[in-house]
Amino acid sequence: MALHPSPDYFTHFLTLAGIFVFSTSGAVAGIRRQADLFGVVVLAITASLSGGIFRDILLGYLPPANLRSWDTLAAAGLGAIVTFYFYPVVNRLNNPVEIFDAIGLGAFSVIGAEKGLIYGLDAPWAVVMGVVTAVGGGVARDVLLGQMPIILRTEIYATAAIVGSVIVIISYELPEISDTAGMICGAVACTAIRLFALRYRWHISITPPKE
Amino acid sequence: MALHPSPDYFTHFLTLAGIFVFSTSGAVAGIRRQADLFGVVVLAITASLSGGIFRDILLGYLPPANLRSWDTLAAAGLGAIVTFYFYPVVNRLNNPVEIFDAIGLGAFSVIGAEKGLIYGLDAPWAVVMGVVTAVGGGVARDVLLGQMPIILRTEIYATAAIVGSVIVIISYELPEISDTAGMICGAVACTAIRLFALRYRWHISITPPKE
Amino acid sequence: MALHPSPDYFTHFLTLAGIFVFSTSGAVAGIRRQADLFGVVVLAITASLSGGIFRDILLGYLPPANLRSWDTLAAAGLGAIVTFYFYPVVNRLNNPVEIFDAIGLGAFSVIGAEKGLIYGLDAPWAVVMGVVTAVGGGVARDVLLGQMPIILRTEIYATAAIVGSVIVIISYELPEISDTAGMICGAVACTAIRLFALRYRWHISITPPKE
Repeated sequence: MALHPSPDYFTHFLTLAGIFVFSTSGAVAGIRRQADLFGVVVLAITASLSGGIFRDILLGYLPPANLRSWDTLAAAGLGAIVTFYFYPVVNRLNNPVEIFDAIGLGAFSVIGAEKGLIYGLDAPWAVVMGVVTAVGGGVARDVLLGQMPIILRTEIYATAAIVGSVIVIISYELPEISDTAGMICGAVACTAIRLFALRYRWHISITPPKE
Repeated sequence: MALHPSPDYFTHFLTLAGIFVFSTSGAVAGIRRQADLFGVVVLAITASLSGGIFRDILLGYLPPANLRSWDTLAAAGLGAIVTFYFYPVVNRLNNPVEIFDAIGLGAFSVIGAEKGLIYGLDAPWAVVMGVVTAVGGGVARDVLLGQMPIILRTEIYATAAIVGSVIVIISYELPEISDTAGMICGAVACTAIRLFALRYRWHISITPPKE
Repeated sequence: MALHPSPDYFTHFLTLAGIFVFSTSGAVAGIRRQADLFGVVVLAITASLSGGIFRDILLGYLPPANLRSWDTLAAAGLGAIVTFYFYPVVNRLNNPVEIFDAIGLGAFSVIGAEKGLIYGLDAPWAVVMGVVTAVGGGVARDVLLGQMPIILRTEIYATAAIVGSVIVIISYELPEISDTAGMICGAVACTAIRLFALRYRWHISITPPKE
């Protein structure tokens, strides 16, 4: 089985942390819709792993990276079980959860964009890979819940992932910036935009012109 | 085109039987939602083939096994057409349909778990492959119908697929048990659990602790 | 990166035109559901590119053809933005949009069926590839909107794609007809059936027999 293209312990740790956080978002959504423990675990796994899985399917990197070790599944399952049994606590922690979620968003978007570039995609498609990695899990979670994905309706969420991905792309074009520095900048920018948007209720909603 | 990893006539026959049965479940769901013949056929194909297709996409076995011969499509189409034209009869047969569905569940879960092992996945992911094969079609059917998948809400259904898959995994670890014996045990256990759960209305519903 | 199996400028132009038209259908659906600009772009990309992407995943042609150049993304984005800013105009153009959509349907169905044959699928599965390419985007659009896909409920839409695909399959079997001629015939037949169905309100709706 081929090795992960960048077998980097820091990236792997960041991925696991992002999976854990996104897993809690899936678990919370399931608990609010009265799913039982099994349903909550399925929603948590879907929310945390399917963005990266879908990216790897598109890139032809199969089996997807998330399936090549059991620790991704363990991180997703742990997020689900912790959320399930400590739901009253997690529910009150809304703010910390959103902070972790913003960190996951930053990490996943730059990891996805870099992988798109490594696989030779044109820059615009590499940005799409960043966005798919970062928001694909949330979309799959909402599709399983039978509702229109939240990211289609509001919020500076996918926009933050686009900014993070674009910074990675630009840093790859500029020889004076190391790729790692570009990824860190992209992740920090994405996370910061998301947090400022939450804190100051930033809101871009461009609507069609009236007749 | 590469051969199917275990070109086993018994497995192939079991697969076709499972496809036929799951196809009727998709067709019944479509008829109840007022789909016409075309919609019913699409839902039946989705319900019966997409679990195995999704597993093969994840494993990188492409085109998926279900697309490598026309008999899978014929079995799915036959299930749809029979259900469509004999709906009043099928509708009264609720009990036999559930029995066949339980057999399909057992067959698909062990086939999926074995294929995951053959492709070198870690044991926990091989269990996921068994579950994806067995319940993926039902999830896709419900997503197409715009509703939250039934398996997320109730019933000892996915749980039975997990037990079947785990038995396959254990039998692969134990040299004294042949792989075929392990698959038969797993399928029988999964089917039996599902049937007992239906017969005696077994119900596990673990809900989050109250505050 | 492997070349597209038939690097044919005419096919590529037809693909881009089909993407543009299907993109407007996704954008219109998003605007009607109050999505903002970002959501509209996502729905337009989904509606126009995911049929071909899903076909290529099934065929194991990865990354999918649609991801191998940026012009597909540009065509989809352009369709979205034009629709968004000229929505009052586009909305009044219902008839021309349907004509373009029928042309896209014809083009995508024959391109998909041919690619299925090139990849060695049996004829029935090649027809499915044609249908997946032609209607997969519309299905994905409706799934994202949380509604049962329109094609499951009515209209001579998928049926037209089946006819176009079958004509391609037959022409490949007949040595006296060139493959290109077969594709043109299939596309024209599919488009014509769809347009006649719209114009004369053709309607096949086969429903189950009453008890």
